Amino acid sequence: MHFPARVTLIEVGPRDGWQAESILISTPDKIALIDGLSASGLRAIQVTSFVSPVRVPQMADAEAVCAGIARRPGVEYSGLALNLRGVERAAGARLDKVDISSSASDTHSRRNTGMGLEDAAREVHAMAARARALGLRVRAGVQCAFGCAYEGGVDPQRVLNLLRGLVACEVEEVLLADSTGMANPAQISRMLEAALPILGEIPLVLHLHDTRGMGLANVMAALEQGVSRFDTAFGGLGGCPFIPGASGNIATEDTLHMLAEMQIATGVRLAAVAAVSARMALLLGRALPGKRNHLALQPEAP
Amino acid sequence: MHFPARVTLIEVGPRDGWQAESILISTPDKIALIDGLSASGLRAIQVTSFVSPVRVPQMADAEAVCAGIARRPGVEYSGLALNLRGVERAAGARLDKVDISSSASDTHSRRNTGMGLEDAAREVHAMAARARALGLRVRAGVQCAFGCAYEGGVDPQRVLNLLRGLVACEVEEVLLADSTGMANPAQISRMLEAALPILGEIPLVLHLHDTRGMGLANVMAALEQGVSRFDTAFGGLGGCPFIPGASGNIATEDTLHMLAEMQIATGVRLAAVAAVSARMALLLGRALPGKRNHLALQPEAP
Repeated sequence: MHFPARVTLIEVGPRDGWQAESILISTPDKIALIDGLSASGLRAIQVTSFVSPVRVPQMADAEAVCAGIARRPGVEYSGLALNLRGVERAAGARLDKVDISSSASDTHSRRNTGMGLEDAAREVHAMAARARALGLRVRAGVQCAFGCAYEGGVDPQRVLNLLRGLVACEVEEVLLADSTGMANPAQISRMLEAALPILGEIPLVLHLHDTRGMGLANVMAALEQGVSRFDTAFGGLGGCPFIPGASGNIATEDTLHMLAEMQIATGVRLAAVAAVSARMALLLGRALPGKRNHLALQPEAP
Repeated sequence: MHFPARVTLIEVGPRDGWQAESILISTPDKIALIDGLSASGLRAIQVTSFVSPVRVPQMADAEAVCAGIARRPGVEYSGLALNLRGVERAAGARLDKVDISSSASDTHSRRNTGMGLEDAAREVHAMAARARALGLRVRAGVQCAFGCAYEGGVDPQRVLNLLRGLVACEVEEVLLADSTGMANPAQISRMLEAALPILGEIPLVLHLHDTRGMGLANVMAALEQGVSRFDTAFGGLGGCPFIPGASGNIATEDTLHMLAEMQIATGVRLAAVAAVSARMALLLGRALPGKRNHLALQPEAP
């Protein structure tokens, strides 16, 4: 087996994790947590999303968070946007990159954005152009690329067509998102075999959830295809807190641990991320779903 | 990628899971849970261990459990033994197979059995001969094959030498156990590349723990090498209940789900196993660490 020598983790806990929490985290706490993450060696952090404060109250302080965090040199700070207004807010908040996407599932797209697949894809192209004009780097993705909680299976050809459209936009980075943790390793392999030739030199990021326990197995399948960028969330944040065991994003610490054991470099200090997760757990008043974050904080028992 | 068309799961929750629980489970409850598991389509269940009731009070009712369970045709019932006396008890309890092993870690071996590596390996050979004389099938294994909580790394050559000894014993099945969840997928691949040629026609079982979240990634790496037998525990039992997120054995339901999604047959009904896990969770008064068992019992949310 051949694996990449180096992997980049994009920390998405402050966005994908926090948006799933019903407890409002204070702006100073958010800033301290993000600064803790950027001090761990992580080179890319998605710090917020620019969405309606009515729909997502947790993200109402997006601008204040962006204004308050330390901008560590060498770290790329990004935010998520769902429309042109969001892109403009990301630029106003002096982020480095904006994260935009459309869905491969018509039902998910209509529920999430009110637009069907074609309209949503056109909107993404307009957002990419606007972001470029504002000096933002762009990561553009396909949500529900491996399945949809509403529709079940998703036609891979639809995903590949959306990718072709994103390549035409000349974005900096392309994302395939398993938004609800439905992908399995065989499916990841098949999709990447078809997708990577379409992308050429544009780097691919995989966004995986561990909802059904297959998160790191999917990372493995992707590493075998040469993928070297993954979204992860500290402590495995992002799961529904009311379903025991139903984790969300793959945990940054668990992924770091596996990569380190496989001699794949990341430049990130696991214990520093685990310390942020421990602080987060105290704020939320519950244990986080990740595994390696707990083990990092106590001597290992046989 | 090529995978086996069919995989056999050996359910070890009643042994490896229950021995980790401080709450004593009643004999009638154990019998009902095991009968629920055998009704799910599982073809192999490790139902108990024949060990000292002083050291492991949970297993004091080994004979009563074996006498009480329904013996479903086509299901192989096995028990674990640490010495000749245990092998004789397994035969007396009319089990089909006995599970014996020695460790690849000297420290673990001395703590667990009071014997060094060579004495323990000799004892395993004597146990295999005794089991055969008593009409038991034998599964013989190597514990701590991928690392040891006391010693850290374990020399793969030591593991391969132990395997050569087991092959000479003409056992029915050989086990490699990642007793503390330290294995990573690259390590699994390397070990299997070296081990499988030694084993020839003797089937290999992998015993994996999900302590650090790599359980199913390791299954994936093993499937790629053609391994088609895995120990799993219903609900992901086997973890230390006092460490949040520190699961034990890979969960039967999570493994079943991944295999089903990869079109690999098992003959096991996931919902039937999840129902047993739900009953177990009620008895223990806490959620079990597996993921897919929870999702099987409620409608999937987006």
